[in-house]
Amino acid sequence: MRGRFISIEGGEAVGKSTQIRLLADWVRAQGREVTLTREPGGTESAEAIRKLLLEGGADRWNARSEALLFAAARADHVARLIRPAVDAGAWVISDRFLDSSRAYQGVAGGLGDEAILALHRFGSEGFLPCCTILLELPSEEAARRAMARDGANSDRIGGRDADYHARVVAAFHVFAEAEPDRFRIIDASGTSDQVHDRIVAALQPLMA
Amino acid sequence: MRGRFISIEGGEAVGKSTQIRLLADWVRAQGREVTLTREPGGTESAEAIRKLLLEGGADRWNARSEALLFAAARADHVARLIRPAVDAGAWVISDRFLDSSRAYQGVAGGLGDEAILALHRFGSEGFLPCCTILLELPSEEAARRAMARDGANSDRIGGRDADYHARVVAAFHVFAEAEPDRFRIIDASGTSDQVHDRIVAALQPLMA
Repeated sequence: MRGRFISIEGGEAVGKSTQIRLLADWVRAQGREVTLTREPGGTESAEAIRKLLLEGGADRWNARSEALLFAAARADHVARLIRPAVDAGAWVISDRFLDSSRAYQGVAGGLGDEAILALHRFGSEGFLPCCTILLELPSEEAARRAMARDGANSDRIGGRDADYHARVVAAFHVFAEAEPDRFRIIDASGTSDQVHDRIVAALQPLMA
Repeated sequence: MRGRFISIEGGEAVGKSTQIRLLADWVRAQGREVTLTREPGGTESAEAIRKLLLEGGADRWNARSEALLFAAARADHVARLIRPAVDAGAWVISDRFLDSSRAYQGVAGGLGDEAILALHRFGSEGFLPCCTILLELPSEEAARRAMARDGANSDRIGGRDADYHARVVAAFHVFAEAEPDRFRIIDASGTSDQVHDRIVAALQPLMA
């Protein structure tokens, strides 16, 4: 039986890591193999690019180099980890994927969505998730959580200003509305168990 | 006075380094400032990508990731070193540039020339050299020289097979014939002084 590729998207501090852990447990409990991964990174070569992308000063990369590096890492990730694992029957769950590049570099960063999609067609033959879970929080709640964990987790991209992150969140929402077959918008407020139940309800049909 | 951007291209062991040194001396002797650089690399960030590209096993990168990494490095190189130096009046001489990506990844690597040009339009707004010197050797002479320096200088890309390198050399020639205004094909046989004299004759008009 063929596997599935699920990406989890959303702004900063929206609870992706917790939900990915809970989701992986649920998928395993259904008797399916799980491969957990993340972007940028996921393979040895792509993790080397991740280091370049997330370390260094805010101006280490201009927007175009940054978008090309993300696409290079993703091409390796898709070819060497995601596709083979899905073909072998696993459920691959990725913490971020293409839609993060579209939202962060494409929309918030001003390069345009079409440019990012073109890089993805070139690098990864346009490979898309079966389903993308978009975690959304009311903006005051998101700001409160981001504040609470600030400092500890802030990297080159997470550390950008509030305006940038507001554009990211808005962009994700637009993408989800434009592709309702692929996206599931999940309310990320409430307890982690409540959010998990919403995700399971959204993914249950894929388990068939 | 605005500067110039000159790229030096050609297959392996065709004498690029020697000719770049001699050319830089000549440009300085004409009273112009020289900035020597190379690809992949040339800036701190692009040199970090260079390390990823040239180190590791032959299969460290698939062709598409490799092309994206070259484009990412080039975008940084153009924006932060080449354009500013030319604007400041320098003659920038680069050991390889876009045409190497076209020949190595595009033609010899099978990704296609149009794909590489599209990445360059995205990453570097299609920025091109004023003049590209293509050094060409009769193929037996090229094979002899490559053999002589093999081992010492062979990296992930230089170490590919003879067939691959033959396609690279053929591709360069096609590019030069298609863009006669930008390219100067220089016979790289004979002594280094003879080759240098040919290059100076070709570039003299740019000194005006």
